[in-house]
Amino acid sequence: MANETILTVVGNLTADPELRFTPQGVALVKFTVASTPRTFDRDSNQWRDGEPLFLTCTAWRDMAENIAESLTRGTRVVVSGRLKLSRWETPEGEKRSAYGLDVDEVGPSLRFAQAKVSKMSRNRASDGFTPDEAPDDAWSVAAPASAGARHG
Amino acid sequence: MANETILTVVGNLTADPELRFTPQGVALVKFTVASTPRTFDRDSNQWRDGEPLFLTCTAWRDMAENIAESLTRGTRVVVSGRLKLSRWETPEGEKRSAYGLDVDEVGPSLRFAQAKVSKMSRNRASDGFTPDEAPDDAWSVAAPASAGARHG
Amino acid sequence: MANETILTVVGNLTADPELRFTPQGVALVKFTVASTPRTFDRDSNQWRDGEPLFLTCTAWRDMAENIAESLTRGTRVVVSGRLKLSRWETPEGEKRSAYGLDVDEVGPSLRFAQAKVSKMSRNRASDGFTPDEAPDDAWSVAAPASAGARHG
Amino acid sequence: MANETILTVVGNLTADPELRFTPQGVALVKFTVASTPRTFDRDSNQWRDGEPLFLTCTAWRDMAENIAESLTRGTRVVVSGRLKLSRWETPEGEKRSAYGLDVDEVGPSLRFAQAKVSKMSRNRASDGFTPDEAPDDAWSVAAPASAGARHG
Repeated sequence: MANETILTVVGNLTADPELRFTPQGVALVKFTVASTPRTFDRDSNQWRDGEPLFLTCTAWRDMAENIAESLTRGTRVVVSGRLKLSRWETPEGEKRSAYGLDVDEVGPSLRFAQAKVSKMSRNRASDGFTPDEAPDDAWSVAAPASAGARHG
Repeated sequence: MANETILTVVGNLTADPELRFTPQGVALVKFTVASTPRTFDRDSNQWRDGEPLFLTCTAWRDMAENIAESLTRGTRVVVSGRLKLSRWETPEGEKRSAYGLDVDEVGPSLRFAQAKVSKMSRNRASDGFTPDEAPDDAWSVAAPASAGARHG
Repeated sequence: MANETILTVVGNLTADPELRFTPQGVALVKFTVASTPRTFDRDSNQWRDGEPLFLTCTAWRDMAENIAESLTRGTRVVVSGRLKLSRWETPEGEKRSAYGLDVDEVGPSLRFAQAKVSKMSRNRASDGFTPDEAPDDAWSVAAPASAGARHG
Repeated sequence: MANETILTVVGNLTADPELRFTPQGVALVKFTVASTPRTFDRDSNQWRDGEPLFLTCTAWRDMAENIAESLTRGTRVVVSGRLKLSRWETPEGEKRSAYGLDVDEVGPSLRFAQAKVSKMSRNRASDGFTPDEAPDDAWSVAAPASAGARHG
């Protein structure tokens, strides 16, 4: 795919994820994320909540099942995906449209929570990562020792 | 903050996160994410791995502790943050620089794994979300019933 | 602002920008961007257009006037901004909502076009950039000479 | 391509773009963007400049030539691309690495400037946009008339 409109949204699930299956037996899940921006009000010297953004997210297959097993109403998540516009006509001939997010990656946010992660074995191969491939010098490549030391 | 360079990176931890504390007792954690893009090779009709991108990520305070408790070497994560460039001089007078990511949000990816999420109580208030605030019509706002039905 | 949903969309203006003024005399401009993703079809070995995404963009003040002076129907643009959801009720009591993009930055894409840029003098100071501040070693910092040479 | 690390950076060119050609005659251009974040200082009630981020950008082919024709030192640009890490060894056996941005789209920012856009004819077909394809109802789809009126 090329020229897609990619975004990351951070917010809380407004309800438990809804897991369904297509007639062909493919799992899909839908959930809505409420993301509330905050503005710093100079007059009151305080942060204030802005208008929440609601975004309906759709994920497929194994990821759909993992989402249904892991997330519940209120969970804060970080979601990366592609913004899509669906357009259709009602039986009465009225034109309708809806924006939604096709999920590429989602995880529970660790800002206010901890998570116990269980890798699903059947996808192990698909992950594309073998720890042994990791270069020993990964840290030094990205941040020389002297840089890290400055934070100590 | 304004005009920051924001990005989301998806990849695997090259090592366990390193938790440290500043002399003032503030927790910070560092971890490196290896993100491997894939290209579709038309000739062989297969996906091939590209050059991995290594990015050193830094997080602070409660989030740092949550990361250290939740993530380990090899965990696939989705990280959202701000790209930063540090510049310094070595004792020998050589100029050095390193790019890194100041983490805003991070979560274990649910693409190949499930997660059991535990909210940390002391931050409950800071989450800015009370489930009861969620509008009953959140789903219908973002995706009218007729739209959802199409996916059934 | 914090926790906003930021995105970049690339596409073409569906019409000339519409410049308006608030009763207080503040300029605002609206324009819609059509962004068409492309998928590579393995069977036909060709790229195919996907469903276009339409996004209505709003910009304010001097930037609004610069947009109205510079862009026209069909111009390919790159737009960075914050995704917003507006909700309201019709006089008949029907609930409505619309997604839109609050523009932070926009420019005509140089992928298929060239542009002659004219800086607006009155904003010179606000740009926050004086060429003389640019470090002489900017290039070498980001890409050592030996790296650049490889691209010969 | 999949799983790439995509970002948008806004800033000023630290020097004129450098146009080169590969031995095969393919145009490429390099330029460095300086992006300066700003923080609001509550104590002084003023915005302050943070540490600048320098990012070396590379673009190819027609876009490279368009960039070389359109941008100069100091131009404020919005750039969207993929973050890449190059790694190599010096003749002395020292390991080096550099981050850079492979440009997908770039345009001169209209925040403080206006631009006169000239479409390059030979690429017209590649643009994937014919104004006549634009739906008449694009505006109403994305923002119903009643919504727009609220801004009047």
